[in-house]
Amino acid sequence: MCTLNRPDRPERDSVQAALEEIGDRWTFLILRECFFGVRRFADFRRNLGIAGNILADRLESLVGHDVLERQRYSEHPPRQEYRLTAKGRDLYEISVAIMRWGDRWLTDDPPLALTHRADGGAVEQVLRCTACDAHLDSRDIAYHPTHATPAPPDPRAT
Amino acid sequence: MCTLNRPDRPERDSVQAALEEIGDRWTFLILRECFFGVRRFADFRRNLGIAGNILADRLESLVGHDVLERQRYSEHPPRQEYRLTAKGRDLYEISVAIMRWGDRWLTDDPPLALTHRADGGAVEQVLRCTACDAHLDSRDIAYHPTHATPAPPDPRAT
Repeated sequence: MCTLNRPDRPERDSVQAALEEIGDRWTFLILRECFFGVRRFADFRRNLGIAGNILADRLESLVGHDVLERQRYSEHPPRQEYRLTAKGRDLYEISVAIMRWGDRWLTDDPPLALTHRADGGAVEQVLRCTACDAHLDSRDIAYHPTHATPAPPDPRAT
Repeated sequence: MCTLNRPDRPERDSVQAALEEIGDRWTFLILRECFFGVRRFADFRRNLGIAGNILADRLESLVGHDVLERQRYSEHPPRQEYRLTAKGRDLYEISVAIMRWGDRWLTDDPPLALTHRADGGAVEQVLRCTACDAHLDSRDIAYHPTHATPAPPDPRAT
């Protein structure tokens, strides 16, 4: 594995940027609920045993980052639910990766199994090379900074 | 997508268990450094701009969870470095999943590219069915609780 030391290293890569949006334990647990089909405040709260003010704060942040969107489902009384946006649905692979790691290392008896809906086949997650189709692990993979010179400061970074 | 509501839902699934070990923004950034080849306290500290006490706390937790291990690299003066264990190396797919999501949604210009070391091919991460080899997305995947009756409380849960 190559070692990237400054100044070759990008100042702020996509891992850091992503964690600024979703790097919170409660946030991931809320997203897991969304992938299970949960949409309503009271259901998130009950399923997670989370305090209402913390839940409201995390939902507000996820809406602000365009990961969830609010949709009105009742006019009288006014009630909203939370649905994954395309950006939010695309977090599925991260959620699956976390679950599978937990299955491998934190339990002898995984409580949930994932199967292909069409044929019941087991689901695996792989890194593959688009050129030769090989399955890869970390030792097979090289990192390339894409900026020859240090990138200018990102105005979104604080 | 099926909706899992209690009591069908496992009380504590692997996502929750995993986030109890690694669900912290600094923790993921430290792990990213490890995948870049960083091993020493001073290098983590400089690369991340993290306070020494926070870094020490997170490293201690990662060692306690058997994600990192300490190795002595100097006797005089005594110095230790931090290396990924097998359990820690296995976090690579989560790290890549986070990076790729960030690349897709948080930047127009990803700062790091991943390639297959052997042939330079681009790396992709896919969910595949082990029965039919199809690439899957969340709509193709079903969840199955593996416990017919509610599992007993996990003694590790607090």
